[in-house]
Amino acid sequence: MTVNAAPRENRTPYTLDTLLDVAVSVFTERGYDGTSFQHLSLASGLSKSSIYHHIESKEQLLRLGLERALEPLMATISEPRALEGPAIGRLEYLIRRNLEILAERLPYVTLLLNVHGNTETERWALEQRRSYNRAVAAVVQDAIDEGDIRADVDAKTTARLVFGMINSVREWYRPERNVTPEALTAQIHSLLLDGIRTR
Amino acid sequence: MTVNAAPRENRTPYTLDTLLDVAVSVFTERGYDGTSFQHLSLASGLSKSSIYHHIESKEQLLRLGLERALEPLMATISEPRALEGPAIGRLEYLIRRNLEILAERLPYVTLLLNVHGNTETERWALEQRRSYNRAVAAVVQDAIDEGDIRADVDAKTTARLVFGMINSVREWYRPERNVTPEALTAQIHSLLLDGIRTR
Repeated sequence: MTVNAAPRENRTPYTLDTLLDVAVSVFTERGYDGTSFQHLSLASGLSKSSIYHHIESKEQLLRLGLERALEPLMATISEPRALEGPAIGRLEYLIRRNLEILAERLPYVTLLLNVHGNTETERWALEQRRSYNRAVAAVVQDAIDEGDIRADVDAKTTARLVFGMINSVREWYRPERNVTPEALTAQIHSLLLDGIRTR
Repeated sequence: MTVNAAPRENRTPYTLDTLLDVAVSVFTERGYDGTSFQHLSLASGLSKSSIYHHIESKEQLLRLGLERALEPLMATISEPRALEGPAIGRLEYLIRRNLEILAERLPYVTLLLNVHGNTETERWALEQRRSYNRAVAAVVQDAIDEGDIRADVDAKTTARLVFGMINSVREWYRPERNVTPEALTAQIHSLLLDGIRTR
């Protein structure tokens, strides 16, 4: 807090960031199609014209929310550690980074994973997700070719199931209530690679 | 088709079943809160009064839809094969039955897995899901105690992750387009128990 911060009894001034947080939670609760400016106004306590002061359209809010999940996710697949060395190590890196981003940006990743595809922005987000999935499936295929991942399930199915388990975490994981992101990552990583059975 | 079936050029008469199929797909597309009778009327081609001929409320349709997923799911946990014998075998049975139900009743299970909990019916469905999850976690705990499942991840987390992977299948699996439910079940079962890594 700075010396010139507003007195506590005043309402915290709304920034685009706070509006976006509210909007993302309403989108997830009601669905994007089911959310009107009226709902955003009620949830934020802002008038419609104050909302329009920050953004041009509901779809712009959706895009900004989706970017907060997609930008770090898409960045990981072109990082050196996702591109260099044995594929099994690259896959482990992608799994870890995906879980970190999920834990850090839970509401945004949840929004992304619920996208249907009715608007241009949703179709763009789905296309980004498909690129991400293709990149991951290619790494799984490399790991199969290098003999480190079993070959009896095809790469695309394995990639879907691995990231299906990871992404399911959004439904119950709350970093403030459960284990740390690092501990959860280690557990998931170990279950995925070696299975749940003792040996 | 019976001898007295209506001529083909006539509209197929709506039954509660066909209305329910339409409603479940609209609920999943728009969210339950975001679905009005107007949407149900547009999607089914029925007037609102024709819809009221079949059901009393939107919530009744939701309940009927959720029951189609919950009834077979809840039945599995009290079947003899889920109650008798080594816990690892009981867990394998629960995994297989869950996947079969998912494949057979994909739209209904998808509806169930998207439930938020704003109405009495949704809270009831969430409570049923919690009972199911508790039953599964208890079987995982038994398998840990019997030494067949690793003890380094707690039973509740393992159960959530296992069923997280299974349930993620709803996002991409289409029985008519992908492998058979039996083949998919075998793949998931094997990945979950033994991991994706070669040994």
